[in-house]
Amino acid sequence: MADYTISVTIDRSYDATVEAVREQLAEVGFGVLTEIDLKAKLKEKLDVEVAPQIILGACRPQLAYDALQVEPSIAALLPCNVVVRTVADGTTVVEAFDPLVMISLVGEGAAGNALRAVADDARQRLSAALAAVSEAGS
Amino acid sequence: MADYTISVTIDRSYDATVEAVREQLAEVGFGVLTEIDLKAKLKEKLDVEVAPQIILGACRPQLAYDALQVEPSIAALLPCNVVVRTVADGTTVVEAFDPLVMISLVGEGAAGNALRAVADDARQRLSAALAAVSEAGS
Repeated sequence: MADYTISVTIDRSYDATVEAVREQLAEVGFGVLTEIDLKAKLKEKLDVEVAPQIILGACRPQLAYDALQVEPSIAALLPCNVVVRTVADGTTVVEAFDPLVMISLVGEGAAGNALRAVADDARQRLSAALAAVSEAGS
Repeated sequence: MADYTISVTIDRSYDATVEAVREQLAEVGFGVLTEIDLKAKLKEKLDVEVAPQIILGACRPQLAYDALQVEPSIAALLPCNVVVRTVADGTTVVEAFDPLVMISLVGEGAAGNALRAVADDARQRLSAALAAVSEAGS
């Protein structure tokens, strides 16, 4: 998968995986603030077919708040997207935007250094959620 | 403002700017698929006060579809956030995630090259919307 994401591939249906992702995000303290059913939206707007996929906008408010204190522009990178998409019958990928990308975009200055703890925390939580989804699906 | 955004600063109230941004995004063919009122959300979840700010998740379906064809993982970077936030009484910043960042994250390979036209198109439209918001506010 892409360098800017952390991901797991799971031999499990799309619907079951979406449900598991919701549960595990809650377990690690991330709320889902936004949802875009990409398949439904593209069908509606363009009448095209894509594989089932949903973008969940996940946010841990304390981390968002801490990040905004050091880098007000970081809102442009929030919430943290977690995408679930079907790649084949019975095979689903869960791909989350890697919070460490924020550091590479913000740079290594004072703001970047201050953000590192926030990004590390977010990354650990999201990685734990994805690992739990993967275990539940195996 | 941040390197990963395109932005304008406007001497106009937050509410009027949010309204103008919505109008101008529609003018350039971007729909708003998601909205997060960050000030309200952080007040609700953490009981903290931040400046008025909203994250609008903007999407042009055709561009999203084109991008997905060459880079399925790109959904982790969608929709394109446009943030409106108050920086002082009567002064508001509009900051959009710069679509060209997608190219730097995807890399210069085949997918990156194919994405460039999409990112350029998105960037031109968002820049035009921000310029129109800026003019309306001057």
